[in-house]
Amino acid sequence: MRAWVLPEYIEDILPAEAFRIEMMRRRVMDWLFAHGYELVGPPLLEYVESLLKGSGGGTDLRMFKVVDQLSGRMMGLRADMTPQVARIDAHLLNRKGITRLCYAGTVLHTVPSGLTRTREPLQVGAELYGHSGLESDLEVQRLMLQCLAIAGVGKIHLDLGHVAVFRGLVRGAGIPAELERELFGVLQAKDISALEKLCGGLDKQVDKPVVQALLLLPELYGDDKTLRRARKSLPNYPEIMTALDELEMVGAELGPLVDTLAFDLADLRGYHYHSGMVFAAYTGSSSNAIAMGGRYDEVGKAFGRSRPATGFSMDLRELSGLVEPGLYPKGILAPYAKGDKALERRIEQLRSEGEVVVVELPGHENDESVFNCDRKLMLERNVWSVTKI
Amino acid sequence: MRAWVLPEYIEDILPAEAFRIEMMRRRVMDWLFAHGYELVGPPLLEYVESLLKGSGGGTDLRMFKVVDQLSGRMMGLRADMTPQVARIDAHLLNRKGITRLCYAGTVLHTVPSGLTRTREPLQVGAELYGHSGLESDLEVQRLMLQCLAIAGVGKIHLDLGHVAVFRGLVRGAGIPAELERELFGVLQAKDISALEKLCGGLDKQVDKPVVQALLLLPELYGDDKTLRRARKSLPNYPEIMTALDELEMVGAELGPLVDTLAFDLADLRGYHYHSGMVFAAYTGSSSNAIAMGGRYDEVGKAFGRSRPATGFSMDLRELSGLVEPGLYPKGILAPYAKGDKALERRIEQLRSEGEVVVVELPGHENDESVFNCDRKLMLERNVWSVTKI
Repeated sequence: MRAWVLPEYIEDILPAEAFRIEMMRRRVMDWLFAHGYELVGPPLLEYVESLLKGSGGGTDLRMFKVVDQLSGRMMGLRADMTPQVARIDAHLLNRKGITRLCYAGTVLHTVPSGLTRTREPLQVGAELYGHSGLESDLEVQRLMLQCLAIAGVGKIHLDLGHVAVFRGLVRGAGIPAELERELFGVLQAKDISALEKLCGGLDKQVDKPVVQALLLLPELYGDDKTLRRARKSLPNYPEIMTALDELEMVGAELGPLVDTLAFDLADLRGYHYHSGMVFAAYTGSSSNAIAMGGRYDEVGKAFGRSRPATGFSMDLRELSGLVEPGLYPKGILAPYAKGDKALERRIEQLRSEGEVVVVELPGHENDESVFNCDRKLMLERNVWSVTKI
Repeated sequence: MRAWVLPEYIEDILPAEAFRIEMMRRRVMDWLFAHGYELVGPPLLEYVESLLKGSGGGTDLRMFKVVDQLSGRMMGLRADMTPQVARIDAHLLNRKGITRLCYAGTVLHTVPSGLTRTREPLQVGAELYGHSGLESDLEVQRLMLQCLAIAGVGKIHLDLGHVAVFRGLVRGAGIPAELERELFGVLQAKDISALEKLCGGLDKQVDKPVVQALLLLPELYGDDKTLRRARKSLPNYPEIMTALDELEMVGAELGPLVDTLAFDLADLRGYHYHSGMVFAAYTGSSSNAIAMGGRYDEVGKAFGRSRPATGFSMDLRELSGLVEPGLYPKGILAPYAKGDKALERRIEQLRSEGEVVVVELPGHENDESVFNCDRKLMLERNVWSVTKI
């Protein structure tokens, strides 16, 4: 094996892309800052128990683990920053009112979440704690769409779901936990035949309208008509009706901001993690969400403080592959100053104006390849002037 | 163990510090960009062999390791980005001329490098490849001092050393490898009594002047006089004399840029890694270097391309603890717009001017604690105006 071979789904970021990601990162962070989201930096490494607390199912398998030489305990490398930020809100900041936090950092996955994905996403996100109303769902979802636009991603499709629909059926019909897990599994996998098989054996345990509703869920995907159909067909449980009302209101607000919008009542992504509305943004023909989030009021409980929470996250490395390359700066080549004060001043002036000035080093003069230089500094009538190469 | 307890030497970064580090990072990166240093992003995880290639002794023990589920091979979490950047220069970019690269990223250490240090430094650095002259050493060292100033760190002490002094003695006197290692060990530990003991047994193997020179090295620390004394006392090997000339020239150039400057001829930090001049910056009374670097022409060899290289790196988390806290932005509190287009436009305008505008959410009105707000938006004579709280 050659020394420069990297593991699968692990890649270097070379200058053009690194610059694009850096600028994207700054624009997105500045947007979040301007909305009052405060930056936090949770660590890459924590004890495994802390990282698993408040995180959804499957995290354990996705997480790299190492032994802590100082304590002998197992530490994990974060696979998601959301539970870490909830820990900071719950334990470290512990503010009474609304808290808005944002973050940007590398997360690591033992296996990629898709065939085109990296095992080292650059996760950026925002979380709003302490408000349970729809206004905070709207604020966070709007922010997500704006961040995608700022990153340069166009033609967004937005999927809206609500875990209270499935949860309402489960609670309303008193479905036991084990059966709930099985139903959740087949619904999440959109495995219709397994769902039918499972529901076929339910007649004695569960009311018939609930069984019919469970069978219907995978079909409840699409535009406004979906909600009308759901109102007619699903049992009239208050939890479900409130969820449908919320979906309608948010759909009406966000519809104008996206290309297409759909409701997906069988979307159970993060069911054990989210507690209310869930959402995901897509672009192009890819079935991978490019940004997603939801309400997960319970997440802080594991850290001793349960309070309302909603947020979103996205992977800037993935987004950078979707946008137009954009302009990479061109440089100005300058001779080696060697004590020429006028030249030194001119170089510093150009740099302070935002130019890239690359100084030639002795023995390597006139090498424009050094930094894609399209201009150079030349002495003309005793003045150092920028001229085209 | 409570769920929010973090491992030793691992810490969350809370908003005020996170903001300070973010701004510091941007200023330093922009400075490097303006000098033609191109950003690269090597991965956090690589095969252990790649990470150890070209890296100095001790890296193996400092590096966390995990099993790659996809290949069954061992991967390491980078403990230093310098060898990774050398791999990118040697293998991926493979440019003929001078290449300037910079980087900013988290590195992880199994044990902290000092009692006051984190195991998760934020390493920022720059590397210059393809030039062997003193001009590139000077460029890189000047950049390091400027980056420290930009980060807000004042009163810098600079230590300059040159591994060619010790290496010259070893080569000139034909000291065998095993003995070299022993001598290196005691010199690095500045263990004078062990050095005397070791040198006492050398009389038959090694020329007397070399033995005397080895015994003298730990004393060769201080200002210009150190170099004069070295010239008189060390054997007249060309390699050593060239090293002393280089130290003198660089010292004369950089002296005016720092508070104090010293030559340290027994500084062997990175002896197996560096090949020429080495340097380290200090501030205050701490004996921990806050930035350091050196010439390490051999580093690319492991990746199939040996060419001149010099660079520096520093830990922004450490620097952030050394500087004045600086200003944290204050916010403007705005009422929930709820369809008020004039209010929405005013909010967007303020944000585009760089203000932080935090929108009140229903049920949480007039809570200035939300984001340290010192002003609010109020409707005065039909105009949304900013007034002090």
